Amino acid sequence: MIRFSAAELSRLLNGIVEGNPDITVSDLAKIEEGVEGTLSFLANPKYESFLYTTNASIVIINQDLQLTAPVNCTLIRVENAYTAFSVLLEKYNTIKSNKVGIEQPAFISPSATLGVQPYVGAFAYIGNNVKIGNNVKIYPQVYVGDNVTIDDNTVLFAGVKIYSDCVLGKNVIIHSGTVIGSDGFGFAPQVDGSYSKVSQIGNVIIEDDVEIGSNASIDRATMGSTIIRKGVKLDNLIQIAHNVEIGQNTVIASQSGVSGSTKVGENCIIGGQVGIVGHINISKGTKINAQSGVSKSIVEQDKKWNGSPAFAFNDSLKAYAVYRRLPELERKLQEIEKLLLEAKEL
Amino acid sequence: MIRFSAAELSRLLNGIVEGNPDITVSDLAKIEEGVEGTLSFLANPKYESFLYTTNASIVIINQDLQLTAPVNCTLIRVENAYTAFSVLLEKYNTIKSNKVGIEQPAFISPSATLGVQPYVGAFAYIGNNVKIGNNVKIYPQVYVGDNVTIDDNTVLFAGVKIYSDCVLGKNVIIHSGTVIGSDGFGFAPQVDGSYSKVSQIGNVIIEDDVEIGSNASIDRATMGSTIIRKGVKLDNLIQIAHNVEIGQNTVIASQSGVSGSTKVGENCIIGGQVGIVGHINISKGTKINAQSGVSKSIVEQDKKWNGSPAFAFNDSLKAYAVYRRLPELERKLQEIEKLLLEAKEL
Amino acid sequence: MIRFSAAELSRLLNGIVEGNPDITVSDLAKIEEGVEGTLSFLANPKYESFLYTTNASIVIINQDLQLTAPVNCTLIRVENAYTAFSVLLEKYNTIKSNKVGIEQPAFISPSATLGVQPYVGAFAYIGNNVKIGNNVKIYPQVYVGDNVTIDDNTVLFAGVKIYSDCVLGKNVIIHSGTVIGSDGFGFAPQVDGSYSKVSQIGNVIIEDDVEIGSNASIDRATMGSTIIRKGVKLDNLIQIAHNVEIGQNTVIASQSGVSGSTKVGENCIIGGQVGIVGHINISKGTKINAQSGVSKSIVEQDKKWNGSPAFAFNDSLKAYAVYRRLPELERKLQEIEKLLLEAKEL
Repeated sequence: MIRFSAAELSRLLNGIVEGNPDITVSDLAKIEEGVEGTLSFLANPKYESFLYTTNASIVIINQDLQLTAPVNCTLIRVENAYTAFSVLLEKYNTIKSNKVGIEQPAFISPSATLGVQPYVGAFAYIGNNVKIGNNVKIYPQVYVGDNVTIDDNTVLFAGVKIYSDCVLGKNVIIHSGTVIGSDGFGFAPQVDGSYSKVSQIGNVIIEDDVEIGSNASIDRATMGSTIIRKGVKLDNLIQIAHNVEIGQNTVIASQSGVSGSTKVGENCIIGGQVGIVGHINISKGTKINAQSGVSKSIVEQDKKWNGSPAFAFNDSLKAYAVYRRLPELERKLQEIEKLLLEAKEL
Repeated sequence: MIRFSAAELSRLLNGIVEGNPDITVSDLAKIEEGVEGTLSFLANPKYESFLYTTNASIVIINQDLQLTAPVNCTLIRVENAYTAFSVLLEKYNTIKSNKVGIEQPAFISPSATLGVQPYVGAFAYIGNNVKIGNNVKIYPQVYVGDNVTIDDNTVLFAGVKIYSDCVLGKNVIIHSGTVIGSDGFGFAPQVDGSYSKVSQIGNVIIEDDVEIGSNASIDRATMGSTIIRKGVKLDNLIQIAHNVEIGQNTVIASQSGVSGSTKVGENCIIGGQVGIVGHINISKGTKINAQSGVSKSIVEQDKKWNGSPAFAFNDSLKAYAVYRRLPELERKLQEIEKLLLEAKEL
Repeated sequence: MIRFSAAELSRLLNGIVEGNPDITVSDLAKIEEGVEGTLSFLANPKYESFLYTTNASIVIINQDLQLTAPVNCTLIRVENAYTAFSVLLEKYNTIKSNKVGIEQPAFISPSATLGVQPYVGAFAYIGNNVKIGNNVKIYPQVYVGDNVTIDDNTVLFAGVKIYSDCVLGKNVIIHSGTVIGSDGFGFAPQVDGSYSKVSQIGNVIIEDDVEIGSNASIDRATMGSTIIRKGVKLDNLIQIAHNVEIGQNTVIASQSGVSGSTKVGENCIIGGQVGIVGHINISKGTKINAQSGVSKSIVEQDKKWNGSPAFAFNDSLKAYAVYRRLPELERKLQEIEKLLLEAKEL
């Protein structure tokens, strides 16, 4: 691990050192978990008390913070501690993931082309006619099928599988175990009760700046393309069926699924374990609560939904509040019934 | 890519060309998305208007279709346009996935046997005593554990993992990332609160004509076999627990799970994100709506279920309709209560 | 396959043979599924009838069992048939999974260290500065990123992916396709509607005696560690988000998900397809029913919960029972309304 001194970090961040400029750190930590040799930061005033107790060696703070007790650590004062720390995080990550070169054995088809500064890990497989841009990182055991195109700066972590003919944009990140372009679930029922496979000859297009978590499945289109638009963020274990389109900058949390041919609009926020049926449209800006099931198109924009099947979020909360009191409601109804029956008999 | 002329395709499909017999295509497209160089078809009269506007170079149509406007494309008239197109799709797919031979490096145990015309991709692993039939395709990075048997024409896509002792039938297709034969979730609680592992010494049997999507998990039996019967179709990210049996021609959509020792009958249709508890039986022909939870055996055949826990589909829709109006119901009840209270006080 | 005679097994189990001491078996079977050449056991009196019909060659029984009919098999009488069979199961499994040695090609960084008696399967990847303990089994196509530590007797099945900097304890078992240490789902919304990635620089710590099923995803912490405590058992296809902590001896069934920064206590039992929101605490001994959604911290210990959002288990059953009768309730309410209206008009 590389070590940095308070003086070096301060220079990098355009800050001012208070304390020992020669003290060094080799790791990052939350302020409440800081140990010797780690660097931390304090941005949220709520956590100020930790500043006086932390064992972190260096803490980055806002330049205007007034200390109310003595500190054990060296401080670096900067204009904005949160921004400064983010800058360091990014640098740290870049250093950590600067793999380059081609490890052996890798399988690279003679008809595949690689851009500048590639990383191809051992046991990676790159098929026929694959086109790979510059600074692309293909970790070990990745599979890239025939005719796939991958644009600049994209990272495929260990064991990602990309079926033939798929297209990946720039700055895409795909985590381990995720499968792009497996066959859509299309079968034609036969008279004898069996099913005949419908060939799935489309592909998947993933636009720029998309990140997809681990062990997700994105099926190829029956014909045409399943499309993940620019800036979409998909969490782990997500199912995207054939011919789906996910709109720009939409985020979907873990274990959710979108069924075939559905179009999800831009800037939607979809919680975990949500299910969306096939062949519907979800309007832009839609928010869907975790574990909901969406069974019809959502036409209005920027609304929040909940339940299975989902309806307006606030209405669903009210219905659920009464649901929890249902036994009490039933009891009341029975009392009234009894009362009326007695009244009648009088 | 290979190009075909209208004349060649027409001969193949036993059709009649109207237009330029020499025009060529190298790809397939939906009629509404057709571009130059693509082949499309028109089967559903609903889409007929696209026939007059499409940019597809060739369109296959029914022989009895009467044109109502001029077309820009070359037509091939056949008895049944849909069937003809399906035939082409299959041929196209066969050409695309005609991989044969053994890529290097692959790991094949000396005690394993391969049938005729195998494809074994690079970095595939074939363990001791494995028996592989004819025309089997094992894509790169597939793992086939010791003593596994795989029958003719089966395809394992990149990265499939088959644990030892499992048995796969003919014409099976398994997509990337799917795991067959991992240990069942069996643990015996100990007095100190910890759990002791129950050895899982059974296997998984997958019969002929089964297709399993990507990133699914099918656990081996504790003892005996987890069985996926002939013609079953399982979607992506599905969980099949130890000692489960899925009946012939049953289809299960994405992200559903079947718990240990449950038997699902033949010709069932199970939606996405469904959960089925362990140790129950689901009768043949049962339909289960998406996101339902089945907690008891289903004895009647051919019925549809919904909800969690699931009950009769139509009843569940009616209950949910009232559920959505619960706040209103409660209000009414309160008014009646008030009314009665006032009446009493009179 | 190795064959054992009744005499050999009896000696091993400290039992007494009744029948042919030279008869041999090479496989294990349930008593109701026993065929020639298999060994079975009878512990539960409920199954005694199978003892007189089984085709198993050898059956282990309790020493005090009084036969009520003639048997076709050879018997081995032991003090406790169930315990004796468990002992054999374990021995059987040990023999089956006794892989040792380093298969070629494997990729092992020169800076990695291996303990005694390692198994490293072909196409496994072991990164820089990895430290591996004694008797560790790394199956084919496993990926172990830089700086990972793996302690004694741990088993990683084919295709497991461990990202850099993660720490695995002793006697850990991880099944195929599972990903440990992928990036947490952390993105900062930007003014233009896009998201900026928050670097995920923490790791995952998995303590001793943990077992994790196939195709699960456990994300690394944003900073600090995602922690799976000693003795935890996680089923297939489970999502554990960044900075989560799962308490000692907690078990979670398939397809459940725990969102970011949530802490689950010790000895909890969580059913399948459960969702738990982020930033909450679940008390020790909590039981959560399948398909429930937990949206708030659970403070009381050892209670059972159900529903989405979850509330007390018994209350939830009562509410659901009324829910199923909601159409009837509404009808009653309408009748009462009508009655009152008529009364008013009189």
